[in-house]
Amino acid sequence: MVMTIFEQRQRWLQDEMRKRGWSGFLVTHNVDIYYYCGSMQTGYLFIPTEGEAIYLVRRSLVRAEEEAAAAVEALGSWKTLGERLRARMGSADAAAAERLRVATELDVLPVQLYMKLQTALPGAVWEDGSLLVREQRMIKSPDEVTAIRAAARVVDDALEAVIPHIREGMAEFELMALIEHQLRLRGHQGLMRMRAYNSELITGMVASGASAAVPTYFDGPAGGTGLHPSSPQSSGRALIQRGEPLLVDIGCTIDGYLIDQTRTLVIGDLDPELQRAYDVAEEVLRATEARLQPGTIAEHLYLLALDQVQEAGLSAHFMGYGADQVKFLGHGIGLEIDELPVLAKGFKYPLAPGMVIAIEPKFTFPGRGVVGVEDTYLITEDGYEKLTVSRDGIRRL
Amino acid sequence: MVMTIFEQRQRWLQDEMRKRGWSGFLVTHNVDIYYYCGSMQTGYLFIPTEGEAIYLVRRSLVRAEEEAAAAVEALGSWKTLGERLRARMGSADAAAAERLRVATELDVLPVQLYMKLQTALPGAVWEDGSLLVREQRMIKSPDEVTAIRAAARVVDDALEAVIPHIREGMAEFELMALIEHQLRLRGHQGLMRMRAYNSELITGMVASGASAAVPTYFDGPAGGTGLHPSSPQSSGRALIQRGEPLLVDIGCTIDGYLIDQTRTLVIGDLDPELQRAYDVAEEVLRATEARLQPGTIAEHLYLLALDQVQEAGLSAHFMGYGADQVKFLGHGIGLEIDELPVLAKGFKYPLAPGMVIAIEPKFTFPGRGVVGVEDTYLITEDGYEKLTVSRDGIRRL
Repeated sequence: MVMTIFEQRQRWLQDEMRKRGWSGFLVTHNVDIYYYCGSMQTGYLFIPTEGEAIYLVRRSLVRAEEEAAAAVEALGSWKTLGERLRARMGSADAAAAERLRVATELDVLPVQLYMKLQTALPGAVWEDGSLLVREQRMIKSPDEVTAIRAAARVVDDALEAVIPHIREGMAEFELMALIEHQLRLRGHQGLMRMRAYNSELITGMVASGASAAVPTYFDGPAGGTGLHPSSPQSSGRALIQRGEPLLVDIGCTIDGYLIDQTRTLVIGDLDPELQRAYDVAEEVLRATEARLQPGTIAEHLYLLALDQVQEAGLSAHFMGYGADQVKFLGHGIGLEIDELPVLAKGFKYPLAPGMVIAIEPKFTFPGRGVVGVEDTYLITEDGYEKLTVSRDGIRRL
Repeated sequence: MVMTIFEQRQRWLQDEMRKRGWSGFLVTHNVDIYYYCGSMQTGYLFIPTEGEAIYLVRRSLVRAEEEAAAAVEALGSWKTLGERLRARMGSADAAAAERLRVATELDVLPVQLYMKLQTALPGAVWEDGSLLVREQRMIKSPDEVTAIRAAARVVDDALEAVIPHIREGMAEFELMALIEHQLRLRGHQGLMRMRAYNSELITGMVASGASAAVPTYFDGPAGGTGLHPSSPQSSGRALIQRGEPLLVDIGCTIDGYLIDQTRTLVIGDLDPELQRAYDVAEEVLRATEARLQPGTIAEHLYLLALDQVQEAGLSAHFMGYGADQVKFLGHGIGLEIDELPVLAKGFKYPLAPGMVIAIEPKFTFPGRGVVGVEDTYLITEDGYEKLTVSRDGIRRL
């Protein structure tokens, strides 16, 4: 019998758990549950280090049974949960439970739920398995790349469909509404998932001139006023003007997988200083591409870009301005937009085949705008393949 | 000097903390931070039981200073965080910190971050303040109701704008794309926030016939196939057919606040059994309205509806079917869609002026569809005011 990709992922995780002396992994996060079993119903996926995974589902059981690469059982009462998990770990008696080391995703699990789990398995030691999951998810399978490729085509088709409708005086949010409509018609699932606490993303951001350079809470180089202090990033009410950079940093989700890309558009021409900064962004991207191959250390790409930007005299403008600069050049992308590896200081991962990374050199000019570019790449055995299919260069309208 | 609504909320919270012997509240969740200070930047809002709130911001400081009804400081190093919080609680020395009781929102706070906070304030006892915040947020101020009213108008305008475009053979997701476009053009912020772990909502759901009756993980009465197992709810690829109920359960977010409404549409006519169930849904809504006034206990409205539905012989179909039924009749709504009070067993809150509640009797017929209605109500001094403005009744196309 051929193992599904989901079962292969469970096996990989089991091997890693064995090395660590863990007894099992209680997967609680919707995205991770999907990653390991192909279903995203409400419940928990329990992967014991030895033996078969079990998917404990509150609802919908029927759908879980149709979808999941795991045995499905009703979640049932919390009172029985601990006993059932122990049985799966070969520790039927409560005393043996005190030797259990059970992993879960502490980066996303809310404390209330964690406390309930601790009560369900008294004496067990809980391990933080989130980094392990994120490291496993860093290397994409061919199926995952296929979905990302499909997303890349969708975002390009949507962009091409809206470009003829862009005109002076159109509000940013009107353009974003058009883009989202085109994306949704092509199968975009409606939001781009993020893992970080309090992070929200729908379809990226479209912002024109000064408003793109307004800093935000969002951990990205481009800002945007947003529509209101309760939604303080991305497109706002500013009107698109001639000669301003129009930053279109968008993505979509197809079959669970994201693409992320940025193009700089302009009605007419950019002023020479912004045009030059844009050209430097492209040069940074080309220099990064030249090192995009297995073995290159993630943080080196960021440090290299910093050097290049400094030589160009643009350090103050790189990836945001002043105190609001973000400290990375790119990020892994897959089921979520904030995946590993990050191209930033401290990330020592050597690039490896199957990584998918969005690389986004950008320059911010307060009061004037943001220029830059972002493409998404697959690392291959001997280099890279660009997954983004939108045409290169500034788009003059 | 007149206090802003945000400062009034801080004072209320301080009074409650004083009663509980708490020393302060570290607000970490973006929605709660907005509720207490009018800004939603990345950082923490600390409200000591005595004295002024301080908003510790990572980014953007500039925007926090423009927006927040609180003193703003750079978050700075984690190493200094504990000391700064202690100083605000009048416990400058570390020994006194052991008597501190600090609340935060344990229903949403991820464990990793909680552990960092525990390290920052060694010895302090952490209290779960999430219920208190949710109870405070249950009673809306006039400003909040104004935003919800605006959202109610937007969702009605968008619905009216798309109705002429609905036709046989249109895919559910195409109709949803149209609705979202119309909502976004009118200022919808792009998603409807939910508090519960792993819950996602964009603009609600549109589903036709059998596909609306497909159960989902989502904690609501209507299902939907969604586009893929990685996005397993709401609109899918089913085509709208004549004579099927077309469930349009949508909402939007204006100035941070949500509306939620459902209308049943049909091209042609419903079959008599579904039409009768729809009529019962309206009767349940009318009977609920008759008791919608201060003092009515939230759960009574649900129990009453159960009785009424049983008399009509429709218990098996109410709020989902069989094992996939959800156990409520309605829910509070405001900055998030899953607010208090819930009209469900165990919720003993007496209705009170300022509560805003979406009430949604629905009946599910597997293989055939879902019929029902949902309106959002403000509880007033002497009864209620319906905030939903869309016209009543089944909409025949």
